Amino acid sequence: MQRIDELASISEDPAVITRTYGTGAFVEGRTLVARWMEQAGLQTRIDNIGNVRGQLLSNNANAKTLVIASHIDTVINAGKFDGPLGVIMGLDIIEHLVQQKAFLPFHIELIAFSDEEGCRFHTTYLGSKVVAGTFDVNLLTKKDNTGTSLHDVMHAMGGRGDELQHDALPANNWLGYFEIHIEQGPVLYEKNIPAAIVTAIAGQRRITITFKGVAGHAGTVPMHMRTDALCGASEFILAVEQFAKNRPHKVVATVGKLEITHAASNVIPGEVTCTLDVRSADNALLSSCYKNLQQLAEAICRQRNITMHWDLVQETKPVICDAGMNQLLAKAIMQTGFEVVELVSGAGHDAVAVSPVSPVAMLFVRCFKGISHNPLENVELKDIAAAVEVSTNFIDQLIQKYNQG
Amino acid sequence: MQRIDELASISEDPAVITRTYGTGAFVEGRTLVARWMEQAGLQTRIDNIGNVRGQLLSNNANAKTLVIASHIDTVINAGKFDGPLGVIMGLDIIEHLVQQKAFLPFHIELIAFSDEEGCRFHTTYLGSKVVAGTFDVNLLTKKDNTGTSLHDVMHAMGGRGDELQHDALPANNWLGYFEIHIEQGPVLYEKNIPAAIVTAIAGQRRITITFKGVAGHAGTVPMHMRTDALCGASEFILAVEQFAKNRPHKVVATVGKLEITHAASNVIPGEVTCTLDVRSADNALLSSCYKNLQQLAEAICRQRNITMHWDLVQETKPVICDAGMNQLLAKAIMQTGFEVVELVSGAGHDAVAVSPVSPVAMLFVRCFKGISHNPLENVELKDIAAAVEVSTNFIDQLIQKYNQG
Repeated sequence: MQRIDELASISEDPAVITRTYGTGAFVEGRTLVARWMEQAGLQTRIDNIGNVRGQLLSNNANAKTLVIASHIDTVINAGKFDGPLGVIMGLDIIEHLVQQKAFLPFHIELIAFSDEEGCRFHTTYLGSKVVAGTFDVNLLTKKDNTGTSLHDVMHAMGGRGDELQHDALPANNWLGYFEIHIEQGPVLYEKNIPAAIVTAIAGQRRITITFKGVAGHAGTVPMHMRTDALCGASEFILAVEQFAKNRPHKVVATVGKLEITHAASNVIPGEVTCTLDVRSADNALLSSCYKNLQQLAEAICRQRNITMHWDLVQETKPVICDAGMNQLLAKAIMQTGFEVVELVSGAGHDAVAVSPVSPVAMLFVRCFKGISHNPLENVELKDIAAAVEVSTNFIDQLIQKYNQG
Repeated sequence: MQRIDELASISEDPAVITRTYGTGAFVEGRTLVARWMEQAGLQTRIDNIGNVRGQLLSNNANAKTLVIASHIDTVINAGKFDGPLGVIMGLDIIEHLVQQKAFLPFHIELIAFSDEEGCRFHTTYLGSKVVAGTFDVNLLTKKDNTGTSLHDVMHAMGGRGDELQHDALPANNWLGYFEIHIEQGPVLYEKNIPAAIVTAIAGQRRITITFKGVAGHAGTVPMHMRTDALCGASEFILAVEQFAKNRPHKVVATVGKLEITHAASNVIPGEVTCTLDVRSADNALLSSCYKNLQQLAEAICRQRNITMHWDLVQETKPVICDAGMNQLLAKAIMQTGFEVVELVSGAGHDAVAVSPVSPVAMLFVRCFKGISHNPLENVELKDIAAAVEVSTNFIDQLIQKYNQG
């Protein structure tokens, strides 16, 4: 907890917590984390994209590697826990292993990823993509709001673009990936449970929809002669809500933005543009929901004589967490006496970037009312202690399993 | 029609029609209209607020005055007919009376009001308020977007603020007020009828409503744990639509503006602000609808655990047109062989400003698809001819009535 506070005190803006990729505060935070890793006895280095990487090696040089990781960049005006919690808890777990002088059947690498939030360059998972070997070098030309390229920011921190591929952990070296993260949702808080197993990270489709009716004078056009685009959009918004409510724990769907073109209080809305965000852990279900929601929108528009433009702007597939690792996590939770709860992560995490090359597992820790990306973000000390206990048990289980194997 | 085109050619912007109060184009247009009135044989003057006023006097010096009027200012990027049609048709009617050498039992004053739209000073009916004697001199300090006051604009055109009260027609001198205007709605176009009697000008209440739910992550908050302000607003928008549809020809209600605070496609809307515009010709009904709609909103919010702020920002009472003049208008229409249609005006007109001091009557003329405040605004020549015939019959009826009286 002290380390969490110490890292949180390093910010671009002293009034709030902001530590975006490549800033002075970011470099300062990274240096602090590297020092902690060294103090814990890890072989520590900083790679080209700016990840802090500390290795605890097995005596078996040919062993595979278990990566324990999370990120140390933040959003603007962030909380203390989103990201750092997973790195600092990883440190606790490894210190415990070092103290125990545990015999390791695999290497462990603790990584503090440099950019997960993507605030500066509007692209997520920069750090974990490099480690997974899926980093697209075209991203290096991306510029931040001041016109500085990712390449130049990386270079200023001592990284080299042409060396990035050497920072990847080869696909056949991965034993697995384990990430501890705050839930960023209210389920554990409501259930009064400190931690949960993540079964999957939901896939997502992001759609922009434009409804076109006929603008008109709010006083002179009788109700039955109107083609009100906002009424059409409203019917769709309620249909989306009902649709997702009818599929509890399987689908979430949200209309988050809505704009009326040339809006005025005395003008019947002629055109409305809104976004739709649909997520599910089940890819087939996500596909069928996507089609069903489009058909719902079409039916509403047909009935109202509204024309519609439906534009899929982003699509990510669900990531299924590794069943084997999750079994061990369940055992680890049972050892602590807590109820075993499984959750789907609706938010994306570095595990998504790693999933093409490694089995992944995640442990969610309860956060106050599910609030994140906000100074009100909070995790209680007793939940951190519980999650450390679960994680330590989990690593012990994993060590036992591979020692037996 | 030639005069309509000639007046429409005078604009601040040569590419479109824009003639707002006090501009060079406005003065040029006013001068043209004054010349037409003089040529028609009217005693013509320009009053302090900039209205063009032409009198055709009765031999009876003590007679009351029938005012025939509309406005010659326009919105920005306007059509040719909204306003000028009523002035130029008034001119046609009066020329007909002059040619006939009709014996007048009342004076007739044709007025081209200087500001009805209120585009420049964001206040409507400047011209007609002066004639009605209800002008508030505090308005003289109002400034346009360039910082010039109404007083200075008026002064530059030759008007004097301290003389405005002398431009009012005393309340006991009004025989009546008659205004011809385009419908600005689609009813006559759909019914295929050239003109209609206006029974009332709807009263209006304008409300700003804020719905407060709880913002949240669009991926991590399950559907049943959400308090989505946009879903609440959508339910209200559909309830408003249904409510007004259930009261056909009696009420119109419109949500024209809607804004989500801190909107993002991946954030559940926590706060939504929208406008509500409700209009009815029946003041008691307008009051009860207002209450009902507020109760509907409250019920929706209660059920969804949303808090609401309801703020009445503007209220105007309905104006009922004079039954006696409307009877004569109906007779006048029957003489032409057209079907007698009665309409409520959902839009405001100078007749509203005049109504505290005079009985008012209005004739609506069909416009293409109900489009107004737009270059596509159009009135067909045959409809203008029909409306001139109706209006001439109407004035003849009125003359007969007062000659008999």
